This record gives sequence, structure tokens and C-alpha cells, in this order.
Amino acid sequence: MLSKAKIKFIRSLSQKKERYEQKLFIAEGDKLVSDTLTLFKCRLLVATPEWLNTHNTSQCKEVVEATRDEIVKASLMQSPQNVIAVYEMPQNVIEPEELKGKLVLALDCVQDPGNLGTIVRIADWYGIETILCSEGCADIYNPKTIQATMGALARVKVVYVNLAETLADINKPIYGTFLDGENIYDTGLTNDAVIVMGNEGNGISKEIEQLVTKKILLPPYPMGREKVESLNVAVATAITCAEFRK
Amino acid sequence: MLSKAKIKFIRSLSQKKERYEQKLFIAEGDKLVSDTLTLFKCRLLVATPEWLNTHNTSQCKEVVEATRDEIVKASLMQSPQNVIAVYEMPQNVIEPEELKGKLVLALDCVQDPGNLGTIVRIADWYGIETILCSEGCADIYNPKTIQATMGALARVKVVYVNLAETLADINKPIYGTFLDGENIYDTGLTNDAVIVMGNEGNGISKEIEQLVTKKILLPPYPMGREKVESLNVAVATAITCAEFRK
Repeated sequence: MLSKAKIKFIRSLSQKKERYEQKLFIAEGDKLVSDTLTLFKCRLLVATPEWLNTHNTSQCKEVVEATRDEIVKASLMQSPQNVIAVYEMPQNVIEPEELKGKLVLALDCVQDPGNLGTIVRIADWYGIETILCSEGCADIYNPKTIQATMGALARVKVVYVNLAETLADINKPIYGTFLDGENIYDTGLTNDAVIVMGNEGNGISKEIEQLVTKKILLPPYPMGREKVESLNVAVATAITCAEFRK
Repeated sequence: MLSKAKIKFIRSLSQKKERYEQKLFIAEGDKLVSDTLTLFKCRLLVATPEWLNTHNTSQCKEVVEATRDEIVKASLMQSPQNVIAVYEMPQNVIEPEELKGKLVLALDCVQDPGNLGTIVRIADWYGIETILCSEGCADIYNPKTIQATMGALARVKVVYVNLAETLADINKPIYGTFLDGENIYDTGLTNDAVIVMGNEGNGISKEIEQLVTKKILLPPYPMGREKVESLNVAVATAITCAEFRK
């Protein structure tokens, strides 16, 4: 049985302040939890008897069998499933040598949790192991972000840093997308580099723009169109990473 | 003042059945409505006095001045803004000659309204004027889809068709992404073609697969990785369209 106190505890982790005080976050849903159960330290697992019967949960500190109704009460999802896991946040610190020779993604104030999660999934697809997030980015442990990563978070390290200071210390080309940049298809791209993606509404900030060594443009079709909405930041990230990795 | 009957009428359009019986749909929010007001026939516009003072609404059949509180009651959005428009659905029928020489997108059961909206925005960016949707796709007039299109719907025609029949009659190459396809970067791509994108969970259906004349693969990095989540369908659409249009 899932106690009221535990329901309250799980639901409290929807708040960023609570998550960081406790250094815990939630993952929900059959596929996501199955994919991540061996990848994070599991503090608490709440699941239906059927789920528990078909999964090895020996590495979890605490396992609680619950009914679907109890899970619905604790869940933060619109369509709760059969399992909720409370994981310990990994200690993500970045060592300069980890970045050597690697393609790195840097996010300057990407604020939408869903976009951040989708970008983690794209990074995973393109073998990018590290994402540097400015302090203004959405929280990677936001439940919406965790759900959007689809487990890719287990293979991609997301670190919150003072982005300007970190980029100033990085000794590799720093690419960023701008409306006055050079057409990406005419630009020499190296995979020992940083790709900076900017905020949903405002793009890359002035402070970070000064650190970009190569401004690139994702061209619309046909080139030079006026009436066109900008691309969503996750979509732009995907097109950029695809071109670097092809 | 916004009457209870009008609030009920607006909210009823959250249901697909009602939308298609009335042949009406809703667009909400300052930017979206400003961008689309001259592009669709407006049956009803509900807005705050401030909004009405700064916009030309002469082409709307009916304009109702409302308070923010009244708009909140009628709104289907989580964060209601200052305006709600009820538009008439355009009569979207496809004539074979419209597709001649053009790059066309075909969606086989893309079920998530947000994905569909994002794909419309990508089509707009890449100058794709027509999207053929199978009957199993999300409804383009779903409020979530409309919001995700960001006004791009005004420049992209979305038509629901029997996709198998329509593709069988199209006399141009039909590309589709498959895990056993040829690397897209090694494939000759022509812009007088159809690109088929499949369902979020199941990809392209067997029926449509038989009509695909060129199977292509979006390669992960490094190639041949096993442990990797598939790309989101909107993200995959963007990478594919970018490669066709570069």
C-alpha cells in the first residue's frame, strides 16, 4: 500500500526546489523506468504487482507495491502507467579533458522543458555525450523533460554551468546559428567543436554571441524568404547536428 | 460581454465532432490570431478592449469585447491570452496538377497533435505547400495542433485523403524512412517527389511501405549503434526535408 506520506513525497518532487534539496527526481511509465532502472540509483520504486512480477528491482532501496488508483494519485503524468521511480540525481561535474576531441552541445537559456528533453534525445542519436546548459535553461529533472528524453538522459551528461565562463575557457571552434550567419552547407564543419543553441524567443544572447567563433545559418527554402516562422529550437538542433555528423 | 452560450460554443470546438459539423476551428493568442486574421474567414472574434483597439477586425462576421476573466472561461489554453478567434475551415481539396513538380509531404498515421503542428511549421520553412494526411492522422484543427503550427497553416495546405489510393496515383518517386533503407547521404534525392513519414510508434504501415519506391535511412552517429532511441517523427521530418532542400 502506498501511504499518503509517500504520495505527498512523490508529488513534492514536481517542484524544482524540492528536487534539488532532496537531490532526487522522478521517472514514470513502463518503458522509461524499464530503460533507466539500472542506470540511476533508485531510492523508491512504486509499481503494480504485475509490473513487479516481471522486473528485477533488487537494486532499489525501497519497493512499494501499489494499486493503479494509488499510482494515479501519486503520478504527475496525464496518463499514469504502472510504475513510478524516484531516482538520485547523478553528480554531474564537467572535467575539461572530457570535452577533448568531442562535439559538445551548449544551450543558452532553452526554457521549454519539452524542448530540452527532445534535445537530449537528439544529442543521444548523434553521439553527443555532453550538453552544457546555462543557468537560465529549463531543469533537466523537470518531469516533463525526463519524459521527453525517453531514457536518453542515461547516455547524455547534462551539466549546468556559467556558460560564458565555460565557453571562454574552451579551446575549440564555437558554432552558433544566426540569421546573418554563413549558410551551414557552405561552411567547413569540424566535429571537435561546440554548437550553441539559443532561447526559444530571443535566440543566442549578446554575451554568448561574442564567444561564438563561427556564425552559421540554417537556410529556409527558397533562400531569402521573408514570411516564415523560425524553426523550433529542438528542430534546429536536429538539423544542425545532422549536418555536423553526416 | 461574452455570453454563457458563446463560451459554451467556443469550448465545444475542442471536440473534433463539433468542429467538423460546424466546419469551424479555434485559434488563440495574440501572435497567432494577429498572424492569421486575414488568412482565414473569421466567424467570431473575442478579445479584450486593448486588443481590439490595436487591430483591424472589420473582416470578422462578429466581434465580441470581453474581459480577461471571460476569455479565461472560454479558452482551451493553459495560459489564455487576450484573444480567441473562431475561423471557418478552408475547403481543402487536392487537384493532381497542384502536385506537379513539387515536393510533397505525406503523413501515415502521425497521431500526436503537437507533432503534426510542428511538421506543418517545418513544411512551411522548407517551402512544402501540400501535406497529404492519412485518415488516421491527428486532426489539423485540434487546438493543440493549431497552436503548434504558429500560423504556418496559412501557407501550407493540409488535406486528408485515402493515402494508399492517393500515393498509388502519384507519378513521382516516393521516399520513406526505414531502418533498412539506404543512407540518405548516399541517396540521390529529387525535389519532384513525395516524402512519407510514419506513425510515432510503428513507423510506416505495410500498406504504404509497398508504395514507397525509395527506402532511405537517417543514420545515427556513429552508424550501427544499437542502444539508441528512435528520433521523434517531427525531428526526423526536419532532418529529411533539410537534406532534400539543401
